[in-house]
Amino acid sequence: MKEEETLDPADWEAMRATAYRMVDEAISRLSEVRDAPVWQDMPDPVRASYKEPIPLNGQPLDKVFDEIKTNLLPYPMGNIHPRFWMWYMGSSNFTGALGDFLAAALGSNLGGGNHAAALMDRQVVDWLKTMTGFPAEASGTLTSGGSVANLIGLTVARNEALGQQEIREHGLGNANLAFYASDQIHGCHMTAMEVLGLGRSSLRLLPCKGDYTLDVTALRHQIANDRANGIQPVAIIATAGTINTGAIDDLPALADLAEEECLWLHVDGCIGALAAIAPKNGGKLVGLERADSVALDPHKWLHAPFEVGCCLVKDKAQHIDTFALSQAYLEKEPRGVAAADWLHDFGIQTSRGFRALKVWMSLKEHGVEKFGRLIDQNIAQAEFLADRIRADPDMELLAEPVLDIVCFRIYPPGLSEADIEDLNREIMLRLQEGGLVALSDTRVGSIYALRCAIANHRTLSKDIDILVDEIRRLYPKLALDLREGSNQ
Amino acid sequence: MKEEETLDPADWEAMRATAYRMVDEAISRLSEVRDAPVWQDMPDPVRASYKEPIPLNGQPLDKVFDEIKTNLLPYPMGNIHPRFWMWYMGSSNFTGALGDFLAAALGSNLGGGNHAAALMDRQVVDWLKTMTGFPAEASGTLTSGGSVANLIGLTVARNEALGQQEIREHGLGNANLAFYASDQIHGCHMTAMEVLGLGRSSLRLLPCKGDYTLDVTALRHQIANDRANGIQPVAIIATAGTINTGAIDDLPALADLAEEECLWLHVDGCIGALAAIAPKNGGKLVGLERADSVALDPHKWLHAPFEVGCCLVKDKAQHIDTFALSQAYLEKEPRGVAAADWLHDFGIQTSRGFRALKVWMSLKEHGVEKFGRLIDQNIAQAEFLADRIRADPDMELLAEPVLDIVCFRIYPPGLSEADIEDLNREIMLRLQEGGLVALSDTRVGSIYALRCAIANHRTLSKDIDILVDEIRRLYPKLALDLREGSNQ
Ligand SMILES: Cc1ncc(COP(=O)(O)O)c(C=O)c1O
Ligand SMILES: Cc1ncc(COP(=O)(O)O)c(C=O)c1O
Repeated sequence: MKEEETLDPADWEAMRATAYRMVDEAISRLSEVRDAPVWQDMPDPVRASYKEPIPLNGQPLDKVFDEIKTNLLPYPMGNIHPRFWMWYMGSSNFTGALGDFLAAALGSNLGGGNHAAALMDRQVVDWLKTMTGFPAEASGTLTSGGSVANLIGLTVARNEALGQQEIREHGLGNANLAFYASDQIHGCHMTAMEVLGLGRSSLRLLPCKGDYTLDVTALRHQIANDRANGIQPVAIIATAGTINTGAIDDLPALADLAEEECLWLHVDGCIGALAAIAPKNGGKLVGLERADSVALDPHKWLHAPFEVGCCLVKDKAQHIDTFALSQAYLEKEPRGVAAADWLHDFGIQTSRGFRALKVWMSLKEHGVEKFGRLIDQNIAQAEFLADRIRADPDMELLAEPVLDIVCFRIYPPGLSEADIEDLNREIMLRLQEGGLVALSDTRVGSIYALRCAIANHRTLSKDIDILVDEIRRLYPKLALDLREGSNQ
Repeated sequence: MKEEETLDPADWEAMRATAYRMVDEAISRLSEVRDAPVWQDMPDPVRASYKEPIPLNGQPLDKVFDEIKTNLLPYPMGNIHPRFWMWYMGSSNFTGALGDFLAAALGSNLGGGNHAAALMDRQVVDWLKTMTGFPAEASGTLTSGGSVANLIGLTVARNEALGQQEIREHGLGNANLAFYASDQIHGCHMTAMEVLGLGRSSLRLLPCKGDYTLDVTALRHQIANDRANGIQPVAIIATAGTINTGAIDDLPALADLAEEECLWLHVDGCIGALAAIAPKNGGKLVGLERADSVALDPHKWLHAPFEVGCCLVKDKAQHIDTFALSQAYLEKEPRGVAAADWLHDFGIQTSRGFRALKVWMSLKEHGVEKFGRLIDQNIAQAEFLADRIRADPDMELLAEPVLDIVCFRIYPPGLSEADIEDLNREIMLRLQEGGLVALSDTRVGSIYALRCAIANHRTLSKDIDILVDEIRRLYPKLALDLREGSNQ
């Protein structure tokens, strides 16, 4: 046989030097991130580099890293920056990055098997149960994120409603099912309904009260109505921390109603569930522990690097009845590498990465109490921002913050609604382009809003001041231009 | 406001030292992996450590790493070892691990946005199209693995058959759909059928020919039969590399049939699709480029660390019509961070990790041609193993290898079928426990088989000799014990 090749480096010492360079670069970027722009646009040559065809031949990794330094690292999304408050995500952390490195170097597949990573995966799920008040006997699985965690919870709910055996073998048949949620629900539930074969119309989007929580009375009527029309109510999807305003549905009332109506209670806690560990704000999550299933997202408020979500299911048998699969080549053995339960029997993946390590390392390094304090800190920062907005006659707070999300707008006198919207959007874009702050936008009711989601362990209160001061610097001139534009 | 905290280390220099220690440890483990056991069982204190409750307070990361060195790193699954040939997975690589580190340090969310990682994600998908003969205009998305890649392809097929608008809004209704595959199909398709609301019975499992490929004549009859019974045929799922024996379905014949019958052709190429780049064996994949969708798995034969799979869809509009979602807080903007298409519009995740970087870095470092040679090398090693088995009168080759999977058994004379099975299982377990080689088992037809899947860039031909020699050393004594046991 001819000479055999491998991906291992011929020279491990050169590889070590390159790896050290990467560590150094990551450290210098993270330790100086406060002085870097939140975001900057890519010049054309950088964009063009990503159109290059697949390389036929190799080059030293050190050279590859030079290209990464030029074309990749200066142009991040920005969520590692202390003043990135767009959409909703965590800001990663260096220990978590080392966790992903070690996980990949170890290489183990978390589909199952009798090895240490599999035990750590179970341990992290156990810790997440503790954090959310779920009992030790509950079941759970780490996922690619909250969307799949929600999909898993809703699949269990659907299957339990129709009978596991029946639906797994024969599908939905003529079932006419209904799920219930507020109109503030995250889009991933639409996708879940579609993938599950139920269609969006099976998800009843109910109106909210003034505080953007699900109107429980309206829900009660809708359930009665559906029953009267021969439709089978299946599950209430409560949101603990909505994407728009951070509102937390009335979990105790929804748990009572679910009990009364014999419905499944799924809580989408991707944003808020982990606030249960926060000493000052944890009380807002009372009722979470009564859910049949919960989706939560360590890559948000635990700042684990992407990806890691989690679905917890109260009844282990229901969870496993939904997903367990067995195949000849996957037989569980009495001894050896395969002498363990399959971790892929709890979700939709077969191979699974070792997501647990980065979470485990950070929790070991900092302790869970610090994560609780950091969550309180972000909520206090949101409250501080809300105070500054309330104090400004030209700004309007559009919802009372409950967690770490603040929706507001600049509202100077003498402008039409359309101009106000243009003004706010232009301010958002200039803030991003200036590299000082990144906010996003949304609609609160029908009103165009600037939205600040402070799930960020690097944010300091003085960053909030920087935001407000910069807006105040920017808007008068823009408002003037708009007023003059309208007068022409 | 009181003193604010962060997850960033107070002392970056101490962190750098710890990070270097981790790099050193990973390098010493990987560079010496050949001399380590493939697998070893965990002692009780190690198992007990994974029962510890969540830590309330922190400790220096260096201490945490000591624990990782004691309780985690010595007990991997084993797939990084040159003689791990169980199940089906790649063996990771150091560059890929550095890729995961940099991806996590950069922290960007690949749900979308106007940043460099998003462009690299698109570029890697483009490269995967090139590798599999898909046209540049085709669509695709990186996934958590092959299971979700298959789910995505089948969702597009289902939705296109029923009409996107209709199914997304109203669900399956009374649709009676059929999908077709051989009985060698991977279990993730069962899960897909169940999740999609169709049930397993919608997946017709057709018999195979002697070479374990789908019997196209039987398929043609089944389709006709289903049509005659008012059932709507939707898609053929061809497998390019079955999990049991590595068989590749007759792709050109299936593509012809799909065209004739106006059916979707999905190819599960998780095992074999990437062999299209192998100079000697690439011809076996002819027809792949005619599929409507393909699932493939860079965390298998490209040895990317977990996780990264990919679904390619020939028609971009069909792909996006299945998954695109828009929400107020996710509006695409004219400029700034959100001035880009959403990458989460191609699948079931919202947040997405930066899976592309590890694949990109390895392809840049080694060039695609080397990956092609490595695939040929594994197939040659499988052929070499088959030769050694053929040459041994006490061993039986149970299927002719096409790719890198070899199914065989030890078959000494004078033992009952039940004893043969016990003997083979015992050998598999002793090989694992001895730490020298890890194989798994399966059934080929009804026969219990040892199964060797050589998707491993560290395997050398001499490792194959070690396997065969060790089996020959082990079995005579075991066979004797069994014969004596039966004679009592
Ligand atoms: C309330 C809510 N649910 C679900 C999700 C989806 O989570 P992921 O992005 O982890 O899939 C999000 C994401 O922001 C969310 O805010
Ligand atoms: C043929 C086939 N399809 C699909 C899969 C699932 O891929 P993954 O484990 O990446 O989800 C596998 C895994 O081994 C496979 O062999």
